[in-house]
Amino acid sequence: MSDVKTPKQIIMNAFDMNCVGHINHGLWTHPRDHSTEFNQIQHWTEQAQLLEKGLFDGLFLADIVGVYDVYQNNIDLTLKESIQLPSHDPLLLISAMAATTQHLGFGVTVNLSYESPYLLARRFSTLDHLTQGRIGWNIVTGYLDSAAKAMGFTELLAHDLRYDQAEEFLDVAYQLWESSWEDDAVLINKTQRVYAQPAKVHKIKHQGPYYQVAGYHLSAPSPQRTPLLFQAGASSRGTAFAAQHAECIFISGNEKHITKQQVDTIRAQVQATGRDPDNVKILMGINVIVAETEIQAHEKYQEYLRYASPEAGLAHFSSSTGIDFAQYGLDEAIPYRSSNAIASVNDRFKHETITPRDLLEQHKLGGRYRLIIGSASQVAAELIDWVDQTGIDGFNLARIVTPESYADFIEWVVPELQQRKRYKTAYASGVWREKIFNTQAPYLNAPHPAGVWRTRKKDAHELPVTQERELT
Amino acid sequence: MSDVKTPKQIIMNAFDMNCVGHINHGLWTHPRDHSTEFNQIQHWTEQAQLLEKGLFDGLFLADIVGVYDVYQNNIDLTLKESIQLPSHDPLLLISAMAATTQHLGFGVTVNLSYESPYLLARRFSTLDHLTQGRIGWNIVTGYLDSAAKAMGFTELLAHDLRYDQAEEFLDVAYQLWESSWEDDAVLINKTQRVYAQPAKVHKIKHQGPYYQVAGYHLSAPSPQRTPLLFQAGASSRGTAFAAQHAECIFISGNEKHITKQQVDTIRAQVQATGRDPDNVKILMGINVIVAETEIQAHEKYQEYLRYASPEAGLAHFSSSTGIDFAQYGLDEAIPYRSSNAIASVNDRFKHETITPRDLLEQHKLGGRYRLIIGSASQVAAELIDWVDQTGIDGFNLARIVTPESYADFIEWVVPELQQRKRYKTAYASGVWREKIFNTQAPYLNAPHPAGVWRTRKKDAHELPVTQERELT
Repeated sequence: MSDVKTPKQIIMNAFDMNCVGHINHGLWTHPRDHSTEFNQIQHWTEQAQLLEKGLFDGLFLADIVGVYDVYQNNIDLTLKESIQLPSHDPLLLISAMAATTQHLGFGVTVNLSYESPYLLARRFSTLDHLTQGRIGWNIVTGYLDSAAKAMGFTELLAHDLRYDQAEEFLDVAYQLWESSWEDDAVLINKTQRVYAQPAKVHKIKHQGPYYQVAGYHLSAPSPQRTPLLFQAGASSRGTAFAAQHAECIFISGNEKHITKQQVDTIRAQVQATGRDPDNVKILMGINVIVAETEIQAHEKYQEYLRYASPEAGLAHFSSSTGIDFAQYGLDEAIPYRSSNAIASVNDRFKHETITPRDLLEQHKLGGRYRLIIGSASQVAAELIDWVDQTGIDGFNLARIVTPESYADFIEWVVPELQQRKRYKTAYASGVWREKIFNTQAPYLNAPHPAGVWRTRKKDAHELPVTQERELT
Repeated sequence: MSDVKTPKQIIMNAFDMNCVGHINHGLWTHPRDHSTEFNQIQHWTEQAQLLEKGLFDGLFLADIVGVYDVYQNNIDLTLKESIQLPSHDPLLLISAMAATTQHLGFGVTVNLSYESPYLLARRFSTLDHLTQGRIGWNIVTGYLDSAAKAMGFTELLAHDLRYDQAEEFLDVAYQLWESSWEDDAVLINKTQRVYAQPAKVHKIKHQGPYYQVAGYHLSAPSPQRTPLLFQAGASSRGTAFAAQHAECIFISGNEKHITKQQVDTIRAQVQATGRDPDNVKILMGINVIVAETEIQAHEKYQEYLRYASPEAGLAHFSSSTGIDFAQYGLDEAIPYRSSNAIASVNDRFKHETITPRDLLEQHKLGGRYRLIIGSASQVAAELIDWVDQTGIDGFNLARIVTPESYADFIEWVVPELQQRKRYKTAYASGVWREKIFNTQAPYLNAPHPAGVWRTRKKDAHELPVTQERELT
């Protein structure tokens, strides 16, 4: 197995969101927390510079469209604790952060359900140019009825249909990114007056149940063409989708032997699609509390707990599952009921007897990511153990107190990992994809479906222009 | 009349676009031109800093979705001369430029036809927060069939229906910006654990022919709430729309007496909607070539002409009108034919006899904006004369050679205008709206429809949440 052959350099992303309360709720009330400054540019440029100083691979930005209104059937707690509300557009932060960094990647969640492939493809190409190849897309399809209603639908599309739509969306986006402009289309020859060569730019034509697109991509090839692709689907349909498309898969893990099974399953599915299983990096969401000594780290944890809001964590989780946990007594077993929210999360209630009290305990820190507490060497050893025991490739580090969680990690854990030769001491060159996979291949290649589109014979999908054009 | 009472301080915006060839085509081949660097962040941050040094009010960014494929029934010349293709998303440039400036406003064109009000309102609110109240929206509805087809439609919506859709879009956006969150909704009280007060945040509910939206705005009130609103409609329907909604109206002018009529008509229409006619600033698109002496300025003009592409200007104009000018002989009169493109532009052919040769002559510099050439004092005098004779409030300055056109203007013309007390010597304080209108009112007020929504009694549009919510 790849995970035991050679010790892996651990991939580290910061996991953040353009909002106040992200994963660990209630901590915005901590006196040292700066998350309420999320709407100021400087908050982001300074944090990006901090992460680059710490040689983080990337900043992963979550996003949600819609509000968490399942818990208590209203948004009262969502507003009081700012549980991902306000929620601002993450793509609009990127150029400011890219201007003040050189290497840090930016993985951004965009829900495709309410976007058009033509315009979203342009957005990512714009950012891939501006960042010089440091943009990534975390592909999500949304799970909130509140979003569907805000967008003019009566309800959310059913879970598996959302993935059908996503498949078709990607098919269109890949064509725009990979096959509309050939590699050498852009000449920029001032004396011959040729910016781009007409014979090398092609119209894409797609007719499907969800999308109909006939047009030229509005951007010339960017450093990566297709952005680095992230996905986090954990249902069977979601995993199949990720195995086909994702380059980085984001999982949550709690017990190493279960995570190992999950990782093995993912890699087997990736292989089954014809791709090299090592061409997918698996990243686990994690919380870290670190200090000079183990005792100090635990003291810090206790201090954080005084500000955390387990109930806010529960309110968030209510929307993830589609179940209003407030309707059950504190020690009442929560019955399973099917919902249209995150299938893999909701499925837990099929197999386990869980009470609201259990959930509050699991959300003690306001969230429920795996938490590692200790001295620098303890944290480093535990992270390495996770990687070596499970086959994951790295972590998405959530913030508890912002930006203290990142600053602490960089001060204490990074040098310790470097000493153990499990963390880079300098950035690799190239675009984000090349850095992550340690290659000199900026583009996706076949058998990945994006790569297939690029290398397909050009005229195979090109229509005679005169035939389908109607003059007004 | 307001235009003669007191000498107006002239409003100056740079008129640019996230592309190579914008208005004056072919100049990308000029040895000193940097427009091919449009896909690099530094190009934009440096230009924004230059404009702020020159006390420009704003940077106005045009945009186009779709390609210019009318001329010769293909996009060959569009690609060779990079006539607004590639065309990158302008909103994604803003945070980088805002991070390196303090006062410059950013007016961004977004075509609403292919956007959802819920998500576009969030984008503008995100940027209004990040820029601390320096964002503006140039409202357009698009006019290209190529865009409609790229977006999955068989053809463009008819001209007047596009404005009906725009009216409804704005109605939804105003509700989100102005009435979803009350002014004092956000408390950020860490000790009481109240980020926002639930009683002060309202769901908006809209059911119309084009949009159905039930939801809370995803952003708390930003410095301006509604972005500063630009519009450029010049048809009768377009002018009526602008009179109702626009705060800045962008016109093209060629002869002062005609422009004066146009300005008077606009102000009368603004007044007819119940608004103060001075609450609309009218800006004219302009080209300036300036040097130390008049002779040097004309020499520079001749030098520019060697790189300009009148044919590229014609190709651009073909898409603006929907007429393929290449199908007529050089001296053949171009017949009027109705099209679904820009009505006010196409209408010219109803009344005038124009040949392709005439159009090439009018596009000598690759575009057809009014051109002023001369020494600093000559240019300043002419700009002032335009303002005083026509009643306009200022200019959108197009680029010819980039960024030389802006640098020259700032070096030569700005000091001259300042000396004549017709140009600010420092930025005013406040958000962009306050700077432009010299007020201390950051929000739009009634009778503007956005202001009406903010001051409307809150429960008038609030639904009982339990009534229309369906649990999954």
